Amino acid sequence: MGRWKPDAQGRLMRAAMELYAEHGYEQTTVVDIAQRAGVTERTFFRYFTDKREVLFEGATGLREVVVDSIVSAQPDLPPMEVVGTAMAAGAAVLEENRDFARKRAAVIAANPGLQERELLKLASLAAESAAALRDRGVPEPAATLVAETGVTLFRVAFEKWIADTSSDSFSQGIRSALDQLKTLTAEG
Amino acid sequence: MGRWKPDAQGRLMRAAMELYAEHGYEQTTVVDIAQRAGVTERTFFRYFTDKREVLFEGATGLREVVVDSIVSAQPDLPPMEVVGTAMAAGAAVLEENRDFARKRAAVIAANPGLQERELLKLASLAAESAAALRDRGVPEPAATLVAETGVTLFRVAFEKWIADTSSDSFSQGIRSALDQLKTLTAEG
Repeated sequence: MGRWKPDAQGRLMRAAMELYAEHGYEQTTVVDIAQRAGVTERTFFRYFTDKREVLFEGATGLREVVVDSIVSAQPDLPPMEVVGTAMAAGAAVLEENRDFARKRAAVIAANPGLQERELLKLASLAAESAAALRDRGVPEPAATLVAETGVTLFRVAFEKWIADTSSDSFSQGIRSALDQLKTLTAEG
Repeated sequence: MGRWKPDAQGRLMRAAMELYAEHGYEQTTVVDIAQRAGVTERTFFRYFTDKREVLFEGATGLREVVVDSIVSAQPDLPPMEVVGTAMAAGAAVLEENRDFARKRAAVIAANPGLQERELLKLASLAAESAAALRDRGVPEPAATLVAETGVTLFRVAFEKWIADTSSDSFSQGIRSALDQLKTLTAEG
């Protein structure tokens, strides 16, 4: 879930993603990545602790954007609206590079260990969103229900966005998913 | 997520859970578990491949109950209602032993590797529920939205159920969580 970066970090991320796609994640080494990006191994370690971190570097930024959005939302906004807006803000971070997001998703889908890691990151996103909602005075279990639902909207819209060839934005997809969920829960 | 079993398997599950609680999951061996249950190591391996499987043995049964409920639901039932009923049926499987569920949750919470495993099992539950909904003619992304929401209801109600000292049932908790989600999405 990394964002596009025009610097060495960005080059490393794109190089890693290319190599993971070409040779597989397991077969790629840090040396390969640094070489492809045209930087030294030492430069790699200035940005990432290991080759797995290249895939998850963006998760921290995403979480910050989502939590900040929840914290700074209007006090009287209903919780589901707060979270929908926060997830759309998070989605906007990833929108800068759909190609990277697609490749990253393919690498993760091919590797159970990475899938578990991704699920854990999404669980953290939900837990921190729930904590931010409680800080706004949303009681439990509403805070967790809404936060987990927000992550569901994020995931569903993400899958659609990377599968899509249309110009629909990821953040618009989150709004549509929320509208659809409203209809589905109303009739359920 | 195992169900109470009055036989060797049940004894092994309770013995394992006691030992995980007393000495920690990492410190407990298969030999310890068999000894505490009063059976041979060989008997342990007739039921479980390893000590981790004792914790996840119930996940398969849960998934079967949930998927069967989706498959056999009335054709005209709205998708969210289908999934709410299915998750409540799954919850009923665990209701036989709240004490086991509590101990199991504590062991998993204390071990990141087990947490990842649990998240993967819940992700499978959502994916298989979504597939069963698609087989009923529910299109995407509605099928995934509803299935993921179902797992959220399951998790939220589960947490409440194991924290509770009241006699509220787990399956009733799922109905309440769905009602609450309806209110939250309607105002969101």
